[in-house]
Amino acid sequence: MAEFRYNFLKNTWSIIATERSKRPNDFTLSIYEEEKADLSKCPFEYGNEDKTPPEIFAIRPDNSPPNTQGWLVRVIPNKYPALRIENQPINEGYYIFDKIGGFGAHEVIIETPDHFKHIQDFDEHEIVNIFIAFRERIKSLYKDLRIKYVHIFKNHGREAGKSLVHSHSQLIALPMIPKQQLTMIKQSKKYFQEKGRCYLCDEIKTEIKLAERVIYENESFVSYCPYASLYPFEVKITPKYHSSDFSSTSDEKLKSLADVLKFTVRKLHKTLINPPFNLVIHTSPPYREDAIDKSIYENIEKHFHWHIEILPRITTLAGFELGTDYYINPTLPEEAARFLREVV
Amino acid sequence: MAEFRYNFLKNTWSIIATERSKRPNDFTLSIYEEEKADLSKCPFEYGNEDKTPPEIFAIRPDNSPPNTQGWLVRVIPNKYPALRIENQPINEGYYIFDKIGGFGAHEVIIETPDHFKHIQDFDEHEIVNIFIAFRERIKSLYKDLRIKYVHIFKNHGREAGKSLVHSHSQLIALPMIPKQQLTMIKQSKKYFQEKGRCYLCDEIKTEIKLAERVIYENESFVSYCPYASLYPFEVKITPKYHSSDFSSTSDEKLKSLADVLKFTVRKLHKTLINPPFNLVIHTSPPYREDAIDKSIYENIEKHFHWHIEILPRITTLAGFELGTDYYINPTLPEEAARFLREVV
Repeated sequence: MAEFRYNFLKNTWSIIATERSKRPNDFTLSIYEEEKADLSKCPFEYGNEDKTPPEIFAIRPDNSPPNTQGWLVRVIPNKYPALRIENQPINEGYYIFDKIGGFGAHEVIIETPDHFKHIQDFDEHEIVNIFIAFRERIKSLYKDLRIKYVHIFKNHGREAGKSLVHSHSQLIALPMIPKQQLTMIKQSKKYFQEKGRCYLCDEIKTEIKLAERVIYENESFVSYCPYASLYPFEVKITPKYHSSDFSSTSDEKLKSLADVLKFTVRKLHKTLINPPFNLVIHTSPPYREDAIDKSIYENIEKHFHWHIEILPRITTLAGFELGTDYYINPTLPEEAARFLREVV
Repeated sequence: MAEFRYNFLKNTWSIIATERSKRPNDFTLSIYEEEKADLSKCPFEYGNEDKTPPEIFAIRPDNSPPNTQGWLVRVIPNKYPALRIENQPINEGYYIFDKIGGFGAHEVIIETPDHFKHIQDFDEHEIVNIFIAFRERIKSLYKDLRIKYVHIFKNHGREAGKSLVHSHSQLIALPMIPKQQLTMIKQSKKYFQEKGRCYLCDEIKTEIKLAERVIYENESFVSYCPYASLYPFEVKITPKYHSSDFSSTSDEKLKSLADVLKFTVRKLHKTLINPPFNLVIHTSPPYREDAIDKSIYENIEKHFHWHIEILPRITTLAGFELGTDYYINPTLPEEAARFLREVV
């Protein structure tokens, strides 16, 4: 069973895989599946549905039965999960250390049945379906009151941590709100307490007004290279209306989001020649009566503003970033945005 | 001029290179210098001293003049510095954003004149000289009261961010205490306020007693895979005596540290077949009268305990880590330590 272990000095948690601990040799063998003609081995192909654990959710316009062909997006449990729903989130001491049982969920969202199609190739309709899958999985998982946060992310390209070529995203459901989300909530709450306004509403108003870092916008969403980007060519996609909770987004708004995402990702793809990147969704956690610190939820729907980050992995995080949590970004966000706007 | 920009939601700072901003093409060209016979081009060779900016510090047992051959360790300014001592740390607002001028220092510690020697090949005496260079540069830089923290790190291997093959470390001096160091100080202060003891003194006492995660120890230092390691095969090297400030370490203790570092690095090199890693030093910042929050320095010499971290880069930080600041570590630290202890 996996377990969470608390790193006291860094005030964060590590999920330690105790179940299938990797030995030294495991790191010297590559597990990346190269693009290849032999699709019979890829577990995410039509006809290979029995090579994955049974599906949890799928979009099947032809009403085909589960675990058969006919799906457009398919969600399955990760075959090698970091966390398991059968484990209990038991909080224990171990000498001076703290640990919590490896409770949670780890799912894979297969974004397309087409092995050769990637996010830059998807049309709006395909992107909407992926976001619908995210939204429905979040809503379903939050019915389990032990789950405090669901983190959704996509690793695009090997340097971004992708281990299977076939296009997919992942979600990890956690028994606590992660460190970065806690920081964001505390920061946006502080801003709200001082000014009575949402920080991100102010940020996008400023970015849209200044226009120098904006890439693209439509009626409901805007994409831009943030003023204090941590990564070169970092992109934020933010709803132009205030909303704390991604999972409350209507189909109509998801269409609008898909328009901005499609346009922005294609620009990144063109400008940086298929760069590896991570895409993450930041959204508000649902209220939990048993939270140790309930103040975290105070006014959260007023001050927290959900958004998406695209973090290109074209530089290497090194001893400066890993040792300080500061970042060196060798590209001016204003210039990055100009390159992205101008590429056709 | 570079500048610090404040990322409000993540509560961290990014150093934005405005001076020599990287364009999209710069990322597709690799700058890694491969091992090659043509050493005439490597700026870190004997005889190429004029290819670097003038040296700041060197260990020259033969009393040879600066910027000539004869050195064992040589410290120079980084040719492409992230920060410059000529800039002013001016704190400015920019609409709703915050920025600070790119003041600081960025130096390179050339660890050996031998192009083909790396950290796993160094003998104790060579390692001591490197640590003496670190210590003397820290002491010298802290005479500038605008410098609040000096971060020392080594990138070993391309995947760890190394861009020149010839063995070297780097140092970045900053006009503020970085986020990770602030967190560590706050956490160890909290422990001290509750218990009247140093957290890391308790941690090493526990690790040595349990013995299951210890790799090696001598009279003054211990190396171990920490209980809550964030990275597989992560190693911490900690003085067994309480000391907050690395730069106060005597030559005698540096010999003892070099013994533990040499032994541990060779074990890592053998076990994981020359893995890329980052090495960072965590030490206490000197008192600064003009600090906005002076409480950070209260009792710091009693509760903060300097230490070294070695972070192997054999897995990829992906959308989970970058989006949550939590970590998935696929190797049990107990097993990692056992592999490291057993390899010969």
